[in-house]
Amino acid sequence: MYIDLRSDTVTKPTEEMRRAMYEAEVGDDVMRDDPTVIKLEETAAEILGKEAALYVSSGTLGNQIAIQTLTRSGDEVILEQDAHIYLYEGAGHAVYAGVSTKTLPGVRGAMNPEDVRKAIRTENIHHPRTGLICVENTHNKAGGTILPLEHLEAVSKIAKEHGVPVHMDGARLFNAVVGSGHKASAFTQYVDTVQVCFSKGLGAPVGSVLAGSKEVIEQARFIRKRMGGGMRQVGVIAAPALIALTKMVDRLAEDHANAKLLANGLAEMKGLQMDVSSVDTNIVIVNVANSGLSELEFVARLKDEGVLCGDFGPELVRFVTHKDVTTEQIQDALVKIGRVVRGVA
Amino acid sequence: MYIDLRSDTVTKPTEEMRRAMYEAEVGDDVMRDDPTVIKLEETAAEILGKEAALYVSSGTLGNQIAIQTLTRSGDEVILEQDAHIYLYEGAGHAVYAGVSTKTLPGVRGAMNPEDVRKAIRTENIHHPRTGLICVENTHNKAGGTILPLEHLEAVSKIAKEHGVPVHMDGARLFNAVVGSGHKASAFTQYVDTVQVCFSKGLGAPVGSVLAGSKEVIEQARFIRKRMGGGMRQVGVIAAPALIALTKMVDRLAEDHANAKLLANGLAEMKGLQMDVSSVDTNIVIVNVANSGLSELEFVARLKDEGVLCGDFGPELVRFVTHKDVTTEQIQDALVKIGRVVRGVA
Amino acid sequence: MYIDLRSDTVTKPTEEMRRAMYEAEVGDDVMRDDPTVIKLEETAAEILGKEAALYVSSGTLGNQIAIQTLTRSGDEVILEQDAHIYLYEGAGHAVYAGVSTKTLPGVRGAMNPEDVRKAIRTENIHHPRTGLICVENTHNKAGGTILPLEHLEAVSKIAKEHGVPVHMDGARLFNAVVGSGHKASAFTQYVDTVQVCFSKGLGAPVGSVLAGSKEVIEQARFIRKRMGGGMRQVGVIAAPALIALTKMVDRLAEDHANAKLLANGLAEMKGLQMDVSSVDTNIVIVNVANSGLSELEFVARLKDEGVLCGDFGPELVRFVTHKDVTTEQIQDALVKIGRVVRGVA
Amino acid sequence: MYIDLRSDTVTKPTEEMRRAMYEAEVGDDVMRDDPTVIKLEETAAEILGKEAALYVSSGTLGNQIAIQTLTRSGDEVILEQDAHIYLYEGAGHAVYAGVSTKTLPGVRGAMNPEDVRKAIRTENIHHPRTGLICVENTHNKAGGTILPLEHLEAVSKIAKEHGVPVHMDGARLFNAVVGSGHKASAFTQYVDTVQVCFSKGLGAPVGSVLAGSKEVIEQARFIRKRMGGGMRQVGVIAAPALIALTKMVDRLAEDHANAKLLANGLAEMKGLQMDVSSVDTNIVIVNVANSGLSELEFVARLKDEGVLCGDFGPELVRFVTHKDVTTEQIQDALVKIGRVVRGVA
Repeated sequence: MYIDLRSDTVTKPTEEMRRAMYEAEVGDDVMRDDPTVIKLEETAAEILGKEAALYVSSGTLGNQIAIQTLTRSGDEVILEQDAHIYLYEGAGHAVYAGVSTKTLPGVRGAMNPEDVRKAIRTENIHHPRTGLICVENTHNKAGGTILPLEHLEAVSKIAKEHGVPVHMDGARLFNAVVGSGHKASAFTQYVDTVQVCFSKGLGAPVGSVLAGSKEVIEQARFIRKRMGGGMRQVGVIAAPALIALTKMVDRLAEDHANAKLLANGLAEMKGLQMDVSSVDTNIVIVNVANSGLSELEFVARLKDEGVLCGDFGPELVRFVTHKDVTTEQIQDALVKIGRVVRGVA
Repeated sequence: MYIDLRSDTVTKPTEEMRRAMYEAEVGDDVMRDDPTVIKLEETAAEILGKEAALYVSSGTLGNQIAIQTLTRSGDEVILEQDAHIYLYEGAGHAVYAGVSTKTLPGVRGAMNPEDVRKAIRTENIHHPRTGLICVENTHNKAGGTILPLEHLEAVSKIAKEHGVPVHMDGARLFNAVVGSGHKASAFTQYVDTVQVCFSKGLGAPVGSVLAGSKEVIEQARFIRKRMGGGMRQVGVIAAPALIALTKMVDRLAEDHANAKLLANGLAEMKGLQMDVSSVDTNIVIVNVANSGLSELEFVARLKDEGVLCGDFGPELVRFVTHKDVTTEQIQDALVKIGRVVRGVA
Repeated sequence: MYIDLRSDTVTKPTEEMRRAMYEAEVGDDVMRDDPTVIKLEETAAEILGKEAALYVSSGTLGNQIAIQTLTRSGDEVILEQDAHIYLYEGAGHAVYAGVSTKTLPGVRGAMNPEDVRKAIRTENIHHPRTGLICVENTHNKAGGTILPLEHLEAVSKIAKEHGVPVHMDGARLFNAVVGSGHKASAFTQYVDTVQVCFSKGLGAPVGSVLAGSKEVIEQARFIRKRMGGGMRQVGVIAAPALIALTKMVDRLAEDHANAKLLANGLAEMKGLQMDVSSVDTNIVIVNVANSGLSELEFVARLKDEGVLCGDFGPELVRFVTHKDVTTEQIQDALVKIGRVVRGVA
Repeated sequence: MYIDLRSDTVTKPTEEMRRAMYEAEVGDDVMRDDPTVIKLEETAAEILGKEAALYVSSGTLGNQIAIQTLTRSGDEVILEQDAHIYLYEGAGHAVYAGVSTKTLPGVRGAMNPEDVRKAIRTENIHHPRTGLICVENTHNKAGGTILPLEHLEAVSKIAKEHGVPVHMDGARLFNAVVGSGHKASAFTQYVDTVQVCFSKGLGAPVGSVLAGSKEVIEQARFIRKRMGGGMRQVGVIAAPALIALTKMVDRLAEDHANAKLLANGLAEMKGLQMDVSSVDTNIVIVNVANSGLSELEFVARLKDEGVLCGDFGPELVRFVTHKDVTTEQIQDALVKIGRVVRGVA
């Protein structure tokens, strides 16, 4: 059995979630007859401080629907240069929404609001129209960092001044909630739409939610159908998602503590560059350049030792803590990583 | 409680399916770690006579992925004028695949193969390239009709001569299997890809499968991710789909018998036009033009009586039989329909 | 030297047009500094009864810009099944605008208005939105037929009731004007946008115009730039287009007379099916099925005789009269066609 | 009369060009019957060292056709962050080709080849495929800078290693030719396709050319038609383009000398930041931040003085020299600019 730190997407449903699936009251959700989905959507909307919400089968689907709902083909979308939407969604924004991107560098995942302001296109026959600004919270590639409320407020202000909507890829928003102590709605008040995943740290088997105004979500529902995202007796997976949303948030604190533990351990190892202060939540990114191993070699050696992690770009390796990894396993993982780094492995 | 004949999509999971969800062995399917999904895909591929298969969250998603996999943007797709892909998928083919359509009239859902031949575009700087032919089996809008093997063979032959691939929207392929007595692979041998639904007559809560060659399915897997169709511990819904596929096919015969029963009853009612010989499987389409009611009024009155059905275009009403409607309920429904038609209701 | 009846697109600029090019006052039209283009656009707008007009390099470009301006991706466009936009523009509507098509059969190029009404989609999560209705006047594939004003009025009425805009592909609108005796604006009053070609019967070397409201044309100007249709000192080709528009319309009557002459001659030939009454303007379509020659053979044999024409679908051959073919040449062509039909050639 | 330094696109056709239009031998180029266009395309192909070439109505159209020809929808295109294709073509790449962009910073318009190597995507289900690399020569936004041959060789080598094609936006390639002393083919040997404009410094009224292999250009011809770029008796504008290509290249040296003269004058003015060594060709970009005027104010004041130039992003103003501005006018412009800077104006 591996200690699996590749991603919090590997989390398995709890006994309670399985039971909820077994017992779920269901209907045909395309016909809006599924009471469990309706309850999930209403609960999510309330927690996220929005009028309405829509259950979707993945975070990518939620993001892509948001883009198609809020933009017109030919628009330009402003986002941080390492945003998941930009890097890891197969260029869906271009193929499906017909929109271009303007990427900006971020500090801990946060774009400089003044850069955002400058990036908004002026009216000119040569220019696309700026149609959307995306933020990501927590920011995966930056290491699970939390976007500060002031940052979101500043971006929101600029967006409003220019009449541009804002979408938040909040795949791990609840990690930001637990990590910061702010309520989810404190973050989402600054955006028009937000997508939140149930199948990452919260442990549900499948699914995400997209929340926004009634009007936007009604249009999103149409686009979800067109994207093939309409499902039938989907209450069976909405039921565990509802548990994830209502009962699994607080325990993310354990994952964050484990991430800190891991980061502290890595920081002490020669050959690894680890800035512990960068670890806000459950993601730990370490630079292995000085270890004598490439990131791919590092991942492979560590797998031989029984620990799974992921290469995350040149010289970088990512570890993600989650509910299916214990503190003891983290300590064990550190021993094994140490062995790899020292070349004993 | 209504007698719900709106669609076989309303079928609810069986106790066995619920138990399978509860017990499902799962993993992260984006990382291809979910054993239940793998088993489902392998089983489906074998039954459908293809090298590989891919689990998708809906029939629409399976169809749209097939189109994107087999065509290039700017191609033209030939399909029957009442095909689900053309009528009911939100023009996804145009938005997402950038393909145009050439629609042909069908007889009982089957295009004339010679029409297909003529519709294939010649090379000309003004013309799009014909990139795909789609067939639908059973054909929903034609009334659940089964495409004859000879028809499929003829279309396949023309397609091969012109180097054009063929996709089958087999959302209800197993109704064709049970209705005809042919094996699924007898139908699918004539097509490059086939999409089959588990969440219609087969009763699974969610999902479909797309099957084809290894190479095509590998590309389809990439496109599924881009469409937001990658899911995580999806074994929880693959498990009931596997039961649907392996244990629920034969019982479709009951639905077909109930459909015949219903059709025979409707045929005797004054004011309804019902060609009983058109009923191949579980779909019954009746023309209400002479009843003095529009299709919308007919549906509404019948709902007041406790029977749900659907308007299906001008003058037409559709009933679909399925596992959650018994023979007694069909008989009861006939009484109620009779009351509506006689104006007693 | 061939007698070239392939298309009126082969017409060459007149001496007056060449002189106008030589002398044209020009500027950078992307910067809106070209006085000749501005004059052409203003003149065209006035003649077509619209607020504004936009010069474009081809009829296809004008049509595609209209579609992109008036629709959103995912919309459905209703048009006659043999419309140029549908058949001969490389599926640009799907690739560039992301729209689907609903094709309807026409009589002499005119769709039945009641068919149009029925084809407009109702609001349903499965359906695309009907975003545009296109009409073509004269209708090329139907044989240069003129759409009656009453037809346009009826379509326009239905469109307005449903809030759907109408675009006219009026590539040969001035043939309809001369053939009917109605003013251009009598036809265009029923549509939101109209595209008219200068480089067909009117004899200009290059270009068309798209006309509509100020707001629509402003957006069309933006889309023209995005399509690569912005040109610089384009007054040099706008100048002959202005002559085409203001001085070349009346002489289309000669082409129509020549077309009648040709059609009457063909009607007398054994082996050819020719309905003379179908010839409204400058296009003559003849069925060669009974001649013993395929349409491709017919075209090839006639080329050997010195007459160029075009195959126009199964069994059909098209002849187009224009300013560079004289009445004597038509008589000569008839002799040569006769020879081909009698097999003497 | 203004001294117009907004762009070299404002150049007007010469007397010889006008005469060439007047006398041009023409045909229907969609049918490939126009001898003047054929001659232009053959001449351009030879000069650019490619098998074939295609006349297009604008540089934007040539670039967009190249992208559609060389990529599939969903691909990612690598280009310099200030590339014309990315900044000034209305996001056509996303709308029409469905491709995403990866922008890289450049030094004098040249991306670091190692950055290009790193930007090429690895195979991963989350990633788009890298489908194209674009370079721009001369680079407009960088100030008309010439890409060194070694740079192009290095990019080409990396591209070939990864099987990725390279397109050159050579709108002002002949400025690079004259500025460097290298033949055009010395630059284009490193790319698969190149687009060159005739309507900028070379003075033709309209048009560009796209050159590449026979196979690529044949496909480009199809896409040009679909984009509405097929024109009829287009020899009338191909004729002056042929003069531009064969007789107007050498005189670009005068524009370059004028640009140097202008840059040297600006460099001496207090309040302007001007790096004279950056001026390779006919574009002069000056920073006005220390002048006390915004770029928009600067442009407006200078217009009052009788000199036209363009704002070119925050703090920047662009001047472009060309054949319709004399050395005397440059000297006059410098006097007027001096007045504006000193606040006397």
